[in-house]
Parts: sequence; structure tokens; C-alpha cells
Amino acid sequence: MSDAKIRLYVEHPLAQGQAVPLNANQTHYLFSVMRLTQDDSVLLFNGYDGEWRATVKQSSKRSGILICAEQTRPLQLPPDLWLLFAPIKRIRTNFIIEKATELGVSHIIPVQTRYTNSDRVRQDRLQAHAVEASEQCGGTYVPKVSDLQQLDQLLATWQANRRILWCDETLTNTRTRLDTKDQTPWAILIGPEGGFSADEAKRLRATPQITPISLGPRILRADTAAVAALTLWQSTLGDW
Amino acid sequence: MSDAKIRLYVEHPLAQGQAVPLNANQTHYLFSVMRLTQDDSVLLFNGYDGEWRATVKQSSKRSGILICAEQTRPLQLPPDLWLLFAPIKRIRTNFIIEKATELGVSHIIPVQTRYTNSDRVRQDRLQAHAVEASEQCGGTYVPKVSDLQQLDQLLATWQANRRILWCDETLTNTRTRLDTKDQTPWAILIGPEGGFSADEAKRLRATPQITPISLGPRILRADTAAVAALTLWQSTLGDW
Repeated sequence: MSDAKIRLYVEHPLAQGQAVPLNANQTHYLFSVMRLTQDDSVLLFNGYDGEWRATVKQSSKRSGILICAEQTRPLQLPPDLWLLFAPIKRIRTNFIIEKATELGVSHIIPVQTRYTNSDRVRQDRLQAHAVEASEQCGGTYVPKVSDLQQLDQLLATWQANRRILWCDETLTNTRTRLDTKDQTPWAILIGPEGGFSADEAKRLRATPQITPISLGPRILRADTAAVAALTLWQSTLGDW
Repeated sequence: MSDAKIRLYVEHPLAQGQAVPLNANQTHYLFSVMRLTQDDSVLLFNGYDGEWRATVKQSSKRSGILICAEQTRPLQLPPDLWLLFAPIKRIRTNFIIEKATELGVSHIIPVQTRYTNSDRVRQDRLQAHAVEASEQCGGTYVPKVSDLQQLDQLLATWQANRRILWCDETLTNTRTRLDTKDQTPWAILIGPEGGFSADEAKRLRATPQITPISLGPRILRADTAAVAALTLWQSTLGDW
């Protein structure tokens, strides 16, 4: 395992010579599943210290310690972009979390709207999905996933300078051009499968931070819309 | 069921007064699952006659006949855009088919590359996925899904005027701008999870129809790359 193909997210500071204790799951994965032994290498990241190659110092059935050997990649933060989305079926919600992490967002906020089916989300599971996606895609940052928030409460206290890109499915043939010189922080808002209610749409249109955008003439599922909107934003205003 | 929420793809011409016989699966779905009865409505499309409201004329356990009442939507063709992708795990391959259908392509070609895991695909299942995606997203067209083709054979006989947008993962920080005046037919090429081999990459770079494009500084899964590339193409050269 000297080429260190395994990437692991840890909640521990990473620095030259730093000892990193492993929890029970990590111990099981590295030593029972992947069969690592003394001096084998693994890549670690914690979301703020970049990526480090670490080697196995101690291993047992129940615990283990890694030692950081060298930084292999600096921290790469995504743009200050939030994703607000109405949770849908579990597999598609997980998919949205995975794709948002890959495409690069700083913060993911599940929002409850009039037509959102679920009235709660398992924040811990969604956060774990973001960690897993970052482990898989070579990321050094993990977007923070919030607990479910009410859309109207969120809008009532929305900061004045963060703009919202709203994927408005009633706009089918208008091209919205984003100003590529724009430097403000943004959020992308994706509605539920049933769309927004008339009241919600009215409120959104009256919110000064909102920019509506069309995603073409075909009806997109909410998860497709999320990936498409993130792509449009990243390719014009983001770090692509 | 007079509001006709059910959409069904049929392999039969659709026109005013046209009788449309149902196969065994459709009969089971409409009459046993959805419990439609005489004179109930359903929306039909066949990929070339647009969308029609049809009503139940005859129904039994084993067969049924619908009669086309009125066209509810004209045929809407996608742009002349092909998607070439290397098949990956089944769930992610299905996902690519679904998303390509929603985002709008005319033709989907699974390609075998050096690092493609599978050496065959179930073309019939992939085609059925495209049909289902079109039923769900309100489409009136279904992209044709080909059988698996060898990338090098495909390139050897590639037509001179169809350009290829190649998502080159080695280009991480170069912005490729697509010429929005471009009117030629295009294809998008997505590699397998392991990327293209050195020989393949060399051949692709030497192919005059190829335009390489970067999808940002993070590593994207193949299915994410497919959706991102389709979005970029549609928003600059397509019908969005």
C-alpha cells in the first residue's frame, strides 16, 4: 500500500509528524477490510489542513495511530456558493449531496417548501454523504450540510449581499446571462419535484436578491436541475 | 382520470381518431395497476408524432385499445447532439441515460475504451431507460441508444463535420469557450472512471474534430462530468 490509494476524512488536525488516532470504523476499514499493516500509507484530509500522506504507526483490532509524513496537496476551498434544495427521494437527495460536493459548494441547506414531501432530514447521514463524496473525488474540503430549514424563515433573515440563483421552471425560453464580473456570494435554489406554490413563487419574485434562470425547454428532475445550475454557475462565476 | 396524468410511450403511429393497440405490459399497467376504465384519458407519444390525449376504447385483462382524441403537444426534437460515454456501474450508467434524455440529446452511444470495465451493455435495458426518462420528463422524443462500440473504430469512421467535445480531465484550469455561433452537429465524449489511456489521449488530441474542455479543478465522476458537459453545451450551443 505504499502508493496510498486510500483517502480518509478525519476530524483531527494534520501537520508534519502529527499523530492521528483512528476511531473504531476507521480502524476496521483500514486494518480488517483493506489489510493495511505497519508503515503502509494512506491519504488524510480534515477539511482545513489540505491532504497529507500518513503512515501506520500502531494497529490493533480496536484502534490505530497514523503519523503524518508529508502534505500531498494544499487545502483547496470551493467558491462561497451555497446550495438550497428541497429534499426528494432518498437516493436522489444523496445524489444531490454527492454532486454538489464534487462540483464545489461551501454549504448545503435542505429547505422545506410547501410541496416538499419530507418534514425532516437525517442531517448526519447527508453530512456523511458529503464526506464520502469528498473522499472519492479527491477533495480537501467538505461542504457543511445544515439541518432542514423552512424556506420562508430562511428568506425572512436572508443576508442582503448574498444573491440567489433561482431555477424557475416557468421560465422555459428566456436565456439569463450571468454577469461574469460578479464577485458577490451566491446561493442556488432548487425547488421540489412539484415546483413552488403560487405564494412561494410570488415571494421569491419579490425578493431583491433573487435572479431567476431558465434551464431549457424540457422538464428537469430536481436532481438534474441541481447539477445543471451548479455547472452554469461554476462555469461563469466560479472557479472552473 | 380525465386529467390524463399518465404518459405512455407507444410504438405506433398517432393521429386524430387513430386506434392504438396496447401490449401486455401496457395493458397490465393501465388497467390492473392504474385501474383505468372506459373513456379514461392517457397521454401517448411515440417519438415522432408529438403528444396525444387518447381515451380507453376497449379493455380486458390481456389487451386494450386506445383512441387518439387530440394532439396535446407538438413533437419537440432535441438538438443534433450525440453523447458518447464509457459504461460504468449499472446505477450510474442508468443515471447517465436518464440525464442525457432530460437534458436533450438525439443519440446515445456507449463506447468501449481501454479502461472501460464492461465489454458489453444491455442495449435493450438502456433504451428502456431512455423511454422511461422521456415518459417522466414530459418529452416527446426518445434518444436512440446504440449498442456498445469500440472507441477507436468509431473515431476511424467519424464523419468530418461532427465536432466532438472532449471532457479532458488533464485540463484543470483552462477555460474553453464554445463559439455560440457554431451550427455544426456535435458529440460529447465522456471517458471511464480511470480516464483515457495515453494512446487514446494522443489519438484524441490528433483528431481534428476534437475540442477539449475543462470541467474545473475538482475531479468529477463520469456521471457528473456527463451532466456538466451536456449543460455547458446546451446553454451555449443548444436550445436552452
